[in-house]
Formats: sequence, C-alpha cells, structure tokens
Amino acid sequence: MSKQIITSAQNPRIKHVVMLQQKAQQRRAEDRIVVEGVREILHCSKAGHTIETVFCCPQLSGYSELALSDVGELIDVSPEVYSKIAYRSTTEGLIAIVKPKHITLNDLRLEENPLIIVIEGVEKPGNIGAILRSADAAQATAVVVCDPLTDLFNPNIIRSSIGAIFTVPCVACSTDECITFLKQNNIKILTAQLQDSQLYYHACMTGPTAIVMGTESTGLSNAWREAADEHILIPMKGELDSLNVSVSAAILLFEAVRQRENLNSH
Amino acid sequence: MSKQIITSAQNPRIKHVVMLQQKAQQRRAEDRIVVEGVREILHCSKAGHTIETVFCCPQLSGYSELALSDVGELIDVSPEVYSKIAYRSTTEGLIAIVKPKHITLNDLRLEENPLIIVIEGVEKPGNIGAILRSADAAQATAVVVCDPLTDLFNPNIIRSSIGAIFTVPCVACSTDECITFLKQNNIKILTAQLQDSQLYYHACMTGPTAIVMGTESTGLSNAWREAADEHILIPMKGELDSLNVSVSAAILLFEAVRQRENLNSH
Repeated sequence: MSKQIITSAQNPRIKHVVMLQQKAQQRRAEDRIVVEGVREILHCSKAGHTIETVFCCPQLSGYSELALSDVGELIDVSPEVYSKIAYRSTTEGLIAIVKPKHITLNDLRLEENPLIIVIEGVEKPGNIGAILRSADAAQATAVVVCDPLTDLFNPNIIRSSIGAIFTVPCVACSTDECITFLKQNNIKILTAQLQDSQLYYHACMTGPTAIVMGTESTGLSNAWREAADEHILIPMKGELDSLNVSVSAAILLFEAVRQRENLNSH
Repeated sequence: MSKQIITSAQNPRIKHVVMLQQKAQQRRAEDRIVVEGVREILHCSKAGHTIETVFCCPQLSGYSELALSDVGELIDVSPEVYSKIAYRSTTEGLIAIVKPKHITLNDLRLEENPLIIVIEGVEKPGNIGAILRSADAAQATAVVVCDPLTDLFNPNIIRSSIGAIFTVPCVACSTDECITFLKQNNIKILTAQLQDSQLYYHACMTGPTAIVMGTESTGLSNAWREAADEHILIPMKGELDSLNVSVSAAILLFEAVRQRENLNSH
C-alpha cells in the first residue's frame, strides 16, 4: 500500500474529493462515490463495494479499526485539509473514495418471505436515508427507489442513513421494471394511498409483500395504483393531514414486522 | 386595526422579529414567539394563543385567509424586508408575533382513554417537531417534554411540526412532575428502553397510556425506569442499532392507534 501526506486544500486529489461530493454528474461520469466515517466505510466495505482511497487525518482517527488490506491507497491529510472535505467534525477522520457495486432487481436474493419497500419520486435525501435506516431495523429484503430524482449514493443519503445504504440492498429502477419484477415473483403489492383504501393494519403482510409509497405532495403514479393488489392508508386522526414519508414507511414496515413475529410465535 | 408599511430591514420592528426568532432568551424575557406561515398562524390562533402582530408581504400573500379580527396589528412589509425575516420562501408572506398561552399538566383534558407521549432530554428541534406531527396524526392527548433543552416554541420546532405544536396540547415540565401526574391519574407508564423489556406490540396500550422515550444516545433517566409499569422495545433486526427517536415514537403511537381501533371494532 502506498502512502503520502497532503497538507494543502489546493492539492488536486483534495479538489477531486470535493467535486465528487458536490456533483452527482461527476459521480456518475467516474462511477465513484465518497463515503465519510469509520462505521459507514466499514459497512460499505462489508457490502462488497471497493474502497479505493482512504483519506485519513491521524489527529482525529484510529484507522486501525479498518481492515486496511481492503484499501487500495491510504493518504494522510492534515486537520486543515480534513476540515475542507469533511461534512461532520465527528467522523473520526476518515473519508473514502469508493467504486460502488451497483445491484439490479435480479441481484436481489428473495428469501422465503420477502418484505420490500418501494418509494417512487421521493426527492429529499434525508427522507430516503431515514427510510433506509428503518428498513435496516425491520430487516427488509430491499429498498427499491423508482424513477429516482437523486443518485442513491448522494452524500446526504449516505449520511442520513447512518450507513444503512450499505446494509440494506438498495436498487434504483423504473416503476415499470419494478412492477414487472414484483408480479413475476408473486409479491403482493400494497400501495399507500388515500383513495379506496383499507386501514394498513387490516392488510395481511405475512406473505411476500412490497409496500409502495409516493411523495407527500403528489402521491403515487397511476401505474402503481393499477398494479396494486391492495391499497392501504394510515389513519390521520388529527387536524393536520400528512405524516412525513419516512415516518409513514416506518409505521408500515413495523406493522409487517409485528404480523410476521406473531406468525412465528404461533 | 392600525396599518403601516415597512420597507427597510433596519426598521426596529423588523430587527425585533429577527431577535425573537434567533434568541430563546429574548423569547423568554418578552414571553413572545414568532410564527411563520398561513397554516401555522391559523392553527396558532385556533389554539387560543394571542396573535399580536402580523407582518404581511402583499406581493406573496393572501391574508384574507386569516380571520383578521383576531389580529392586533397588521403591518405590510416589502418583499425585500420579508425575505430578511422569513425562513422559507414559500410561507405565503405572513409572519406573526404571538403571545403564547402556556399550559401545564393540570390544564390537560384527559378524556376517557388518554394516550400521552413523553420525551425526555430530546434536543433536536426537528425530532420534537416530527414527534408532534405524529402525535397529531395519532390524535394523542398530549406531548410532554420533560426537562426540555430547548423552548417549545423554538422556530425550528414550529416549522418542523408544520403547526402540530398548536394542534396537540404540549407541556414542558420536570420529569418528577410528569411522573407524579401520570401516577395520580392512573396512566400506565411504558418506557422505551433496551433492558428488561418486552416487544412493544406485546404491551397493552388500550387503557390510559403514556409512552416515554429518551434520546437515542443516553436513553431515559433512572427516575423513569423506576416509575415504569412496563418496559418496551422496538426490535432491531438489522445491522445498525438505532432508529431515529421520532420514527420510534411514531411506531409506538400507531401501535396504540391499532390496538385501540381493534378495541372499538369488537
């Protein structure tokens, strides 16, 4: 493993990291992403993505925690340089450039009783990150992002998922591809929508199930409404009329967890 | 109603609004808060808080939506001035200075089967706002914030609650006061904690119930653990080990909704 030290924020390697963090187009063109934080990099490595370069600030970091044999190149940076490329001051001094492993629907390993969460048109990285975090906790089979408006490895998604983007299989595809996949695999499609819906806890989620959610503002496309096996809604009993999409996703995912646990205990 | 027009951001009235927005100490000293947005101001007025002054940008606003008879003073401001005091560009051109109505535990109207969510030590305004939003949707009786680290009417709480801070009774008090209140009113205390816990969906929430949650990092104080009737936990089945506190609150609140709906339908 080669090793060097960078002390200037004007160094081309540092400018390159900043560019990858800020520009989706650059990430796409190079097929590289930036991952910040010890825990995030470890989960990323474990998931089979290739850790090419790690920038390490020795004053902040214990990089012994990383399996360094998996890292192509380790570059030390000064605290000043690190503060230029780090979003958080508490990320333990490690930032990596990673060649991501992209997976498709056909790469998903569907165990006996898959539980998939599908989101369509959800734009805010913070919401996608929070949904990934809940999907990890509920041990969902996968998160599918249909017609994504942002790249899955947007730094804000990685950050807000606290690494769940690497612990939960996550696929980007079109709505049509996703519907075809779910139908072919006999996975029940439950769409969260207001019209013609039953209360979510009256829907059976113990078999292979996909929970499909749209945005808070525009909801789901007609393709999903028509493809649905059942429509479900979360009762809004208060004066306001919407729950955050990531909160709604968590409520639905954990209803599936509850139903499946009861199934197992009987 | 008097009416004037302000076109300079240096106007003392404008500087005053900014100060109230930015300084908790100023809000406390004057006992005044700032509320932005038509919907938020309407909910605020409906909840019995006193709308003293409304700053309105006619180019952005339709203030006819407000019951203007309830407003002490209406001041027009130019778009430039409005942009200085507005957090969002989409708040329909209305910002109010409000004298809040503070409520205590004893002001809470406990209907037959109260459902109260208690949070202790939760710091991030965005999390408190999200919990209020879920509490509105679940039609909880109240949200109680124990030993608050921020004032309830922090602009970020108002904003992230999308007005739920005004639709759900919200009380700040000490942990001891809250425990005494719950015990006196025979409300079952369910604390969310990892130790000695049962799965949350095995706990009965159909009677008078308080769900008590601490922070993601430090959890609940010993006072709550000892006061608890039952300890509950959300199963973490994935590789990461925490859910966001507002997501956890929503999962627990809607389990109570589910149990209570089933009760009513039997």
